[in-house]
Amino acid sequence: MAENKRIIVIGGSAAGPKAASKARRMDENAEITIYQKASDLSMASCGYPYYIGGFFDDRDQLLCSPAGVVRDSKFFWNAKKITTKVNTEVTAIDRKNKRIEYTDMVTGEKSTAEYDKLIVATGATPRKPPVPGIELDGVTTLQSLPDADYLRKVRDEGKIKKAVVIGGGLIGIETCEALHLAGIEITLIELLPQLLTFLDRQMAKLVEKYVQSKANVILENGVAAFIGENGKLTAVKLQNGTEIPCELAVVAIGVSPNNKLAKEAGLIIGKTGGIVVDTFMQTIDPDIYAVGDCIEIPNLITQNMVHAPYGDLANLQGRVAGENAILGNGVIFPGTIQTGICKVFDYGVGATGLSEQNARKAGISNIETVVNASLDKPGFMQGKLLVTKLVVDKSKGAILGAQVLGPGDVSKQVAIWAMAIKGKLTINDMVNADLPYAPPYSLAIDHSIATAHIMQNKLNGYFTGISAEQLKEKLDKKKPLVLLDFRNPDEYEQMRLGIGEKLIPLGQLRKRLEEMPQDKNVEIICWCKISLRGYEAALILQANGYKNVKVLEGGIMAWPYGREK
Amino acid sequence: MAENKRIIVIGGSAAGPKAASKARRMDENAEITIYQKASDLSMASCGYPYYIGGFFDDRDQLLCSPAGVVRDSKFFWNAKKITTKVNTEVTAIDRKNKRIEYTDMVTGEKSTAEYDKLIVATGATPRKPPVPGIELDGVTTLQSLPDADYLRKVRDEGKIKKAVVIGGGLIGIETCEALHLAGIEITLIELLPQLLTFLDRQMAKLVEKYVQSKANVILENGVAAFIGENGKLTAVKLQNGTEIPCELAVVAIGVSPNNKLAKEAGLIIGKTGGIVVDTFMQTIDPDIYAVGDCIEIPNLITQNMVHAPYGDLANLQGRVAGENAILGNGVIFPGTIQTGICKVFDYGVGATGLSEQNARKAGISNIETVVNASLDKPGFMQGKLLVTKLVVDKSKGAILGAQVLGPGDVSKQVAIWAMAIKGKLTINDMVNADLPYAPPYSLAIDHSIATAHIMQNKLNGYFTGISAEQLKEKLDKKKPLVLLDFRNPDEYEQMRLGIGEKLIPLGQLRKRLEEMPQDKNVEIICWCKISLRGYEAALILQANGYKNVKVLEGGIMAWPYGREK
Repeated sequence: MAENKRIIVIGGSAAGPKAASKARRMDENAEITIYQKASDLSMASCGYPYYIGGFFDDRDQLLCSPAGVVRDSKFFWNAKKITTKVNTEVTAIDRKNKRIEYTDMVTGEKSTAEYDKLIVATGATPRKPPVPGIELDGVTTLQSLPDADYLRKVRDEGKIKKAVVIGGGLIGIETCEALHLAGIEITLIELLPQLLTFLDRQMAKLVEKYVQSKANVILENGVAAFIGENGKLTAVKLQNGTEIPCELAVVAIGVSPNNKLAKEAGLIIGKTGGIVVDTFMQTIDPDIYAVGDCIEIPNLITQNMVHAPYGDLANLQGRVAGENAILGNGVIFPGTIQTGICKVFDYGVGATGLSEQNARKAGISNIETVVNASLDKPGFMQGKLLVTKLVVDKSKGAILGAQVLGPGDVSKQVAIWAMAIKGKLTINDMVNADLPYAPPYSLAIDHSIATAHIMQNKLNGYFTGISAEQLKEKLDKKKPLVLLDFRNPDEYEQMRLGIGEKLIPLGQLRKRLEEMPQDKNVEIICWCKISLRGYEAALILQANGYKNVKVLEGGIMAWPYGREK
Repeated sequence: MAENKRIIVIGGSAAGPKAASKARRMDENAEITIYQKASDLSMASCGYPYYIGGFFDDRDQLLCSPAGVVRDSKFFWNAKKITTKVNTEVTAIDRKNKRIEYTDMVTGEKSTAEYDKLIVATGATPRKPPVPGIELDGVTTLQSLPDADYLRKVRDEGKIKKAVVIGGGLIGIETCEALHLAGIEITLIELLPQLLTFLDRQMAKLVEKYVQSKANVILENGVAAFIGENGKLTAVKLQNGTEIPCELAVVAIGVSPNNKLAKEAGLIIGKTGGIVVDTFMQTIDPDIYAVGDCIEIPNLITQNMVHAPYGDLANLQGRVAGENAILGNGVIFPGTIQTGICKVFDYGVGATGLSEQNARKAGISNIETVVNASLDKPGFMQGKLLVTKLVVDKSKGAILGAQVLGPGDVSKQVAIWAMAIKGKLTINDMVNADLPYAPPYSLAIDHSIATAHIMQNKLNGYFTGISAEQLKEKLDKKKPLVLLDFRNPDEYEQMRLGIGEKLIPLGQLRKRLEEMPQDKNVEIICWCKISLRGYEAALILQANGYKNVKVLEGGIMAWPYGREK
């Protein structure tokens, strides 16, 4: 036995280096080695789309410490006394003898190394559709630094004019933006009927409508083949037969945990494909921890295991494993509420907790939702639009999840709801949240609090809401409806749904009640720009005996379908 | 008795109209009247500094509904069926007869009106120093719309060159920015030894250092007299005798609740001067509610009553009183954690919960604090600096408060901590917070989570921190110290404390341990730009037997005193 503790970390991207660094801080004398298959270390992989998109030009920034030093092997040794073996593939874990087998990918040399504690951070690999032509030049993923280099070169050379992005998830959408900024015409293909599956349909539809203004979006269609000439991509053929000419295709249909090493070593792999660990990040082998994109973790709301390959969670897990590997199991990583955010051109799109569809899938049926649209700060401070869909458990008022999008400050909104869920707050707590208010930062009643107010009003039965999706369905079925827009004529001239509505400025409603139908049971749908006036109008109509009045939630601003104007 | 409920609201600025509007929504038939002393209604008074500063030019925007309609008496009647009597002063509340007495300030006519429920929202009045010359032309406050008009005129005319702002609180600092943007040379006077008393001294000192770059800041000095010629201000004379020539003085030394009406009616007034209400916003008279800047409310952490004249709280209280006045007491406003934020030129400065000094004042002694400095997002996404001071109750790890400042995204940080306090989270919860991460929005480990990590490390005894303030004290007392900066030579060339430190790049420390003092008990202070490398260095030194090693919290970025470079 060596006198100093021997820590081996497999994987040098995010969770691995974090675990190694934390282990070092907990024990100056441990012998810590990172084995990394790639040639780079500690890559800021979430930054690749922004490098490709030209937000910055210095590639080293993807590899730098906050002090601006590239995190290479020399850096790890000098600053952290951590040995890093790059271009080195670990080929087996020999649990009995507590050693790993590895191959130097440059020399081909094989060797072994012994550990006292092993930390597996093998990451995940992009999935690829099993279709012909996947090997063509011009077909790529965006996962590794070489991928990023390749796509940045595409930008810098400026030769490629058309690209297809396959997959409408986070990476796919980020790639769209990056390539769009490189002046490339994009077609985005998604197999499912919506983009960004962490969003509910209506919210995704709003994103789709916005993305359509920048790229051609095709839903419910997949790739049948990549077509090429002389080994070079020339088109993508879709399952419906359409061929889209292009010189570049980026595949972003998700990632799968790299579980092979762990599996072969007899560690348990969960249903998601991720390595099973406890909250100490420990596998069934007490000397082996696993962290990052190769593991599965509990969703803290449903308690279901999920594969959540997010850079922030990888870092938190690495910190926990690094400390526990040295000091023994003391600190925990409890799981995730699957908070995420994505820049979509000039929109932010984020979510935390459960969407309505995910909550229903998880068997939670007593659900209430609202959609709220309002500015992030006052109009006089150039406030920008936010649209939030909030999901609560009706029985307890517990907040289950929130989805937020728009050009406004989405990140703060998502953070607020993530903290609300973390603190197990109910709607009755949220209506009096005490958030920082000043005009440069928020409305006097912050968008999140206003969302809670609307939910409270709805739970109290003060109004009946109808979502854009539900109204669309009624319209499509040609249900008899009275449609009322309560804005002012100038607003109506500028923008309107044009679905058969009548304009009645709210201020005139009380005087024009005689224009309302005789039948008090007729279904009336009220709205305005964001449906605050729509709500007030609904209350007036209800007070005047109308029994079936609904407020179009989020008003025109949350309407994801075509408009007359 | 009238058939419809008669609701009278005294005050038409923020809480009053909100209460009236909510009451209307709860009862279409109530007779609702707002009495307003001023001529305007629903003014966005928090927006005045930005109107004066030229962030926008259309004064109507201060009075507009989100739909862009000026909220005048016509608007209130048409859209909300609320009667508004402006330029009308309520002179007495006759509780026995449930009526108010009022005077039309234009005609002088006196009258009375009966109520079923009365909502008092009389606001607050700026305090004025009882010194000679206060009546001079050129001496003003910034509270009312006429004040804002006056100061905007100053901007538009461009004649005034020098101004003195008296009071270094939120309004004083916002006024500084507004007048600075109008091209006026400012001197800011504060009686206390620091600006922004919701901050602890070191944080306030950082703000002061920054404000000094825009205005002349004078602390621990008050106004002795306003000096004038021909009725016009020519100078402000300070208590130490200094005379500051100026043509304009803005007094912003706080506000006092307008409690006279309530007091004369026999309602209870608290120690803060605010009207006493319960969580239903009800006074001791079940038919009288009170809301907004005229009341006192509990601080939810200390349970002490406070006067918290914030626009956001006024709105939340108004909503509660409006609903309860109609439906009977059902909804509550529990109190405040005194969250606030202020734009200070290009910095945000905010706080939530208790500062260290306020926690100690409240008798909480088992306190731990840390200062953290880091970027709000990656350097490659143009991340900007944030400095946070976090205060926790050591015994339970409960988060007591956070102060955040810097050019970075302060608002999100303060919101996160406000929600953490609302959810009664501990540091062990916060270290694994699940916040939205993507490079355009945050670091992989968000600044707030990193702050929690540092606190956890400190509570676990992994390092001993020293604040800039404490180090300054030791330096002033010429204590023997070994001072070590662990950055790189190029960083040191650009910027350094220059307080006798030695530069040892972290990467060289392990090889240069022989340069360290023989005496293992010597007090060593370690830092770097933000003290992450300083922390790693401290761990190395501790592992090598040094027993008295301290990390300068927040590093050079949180150093509020002069630097050599």
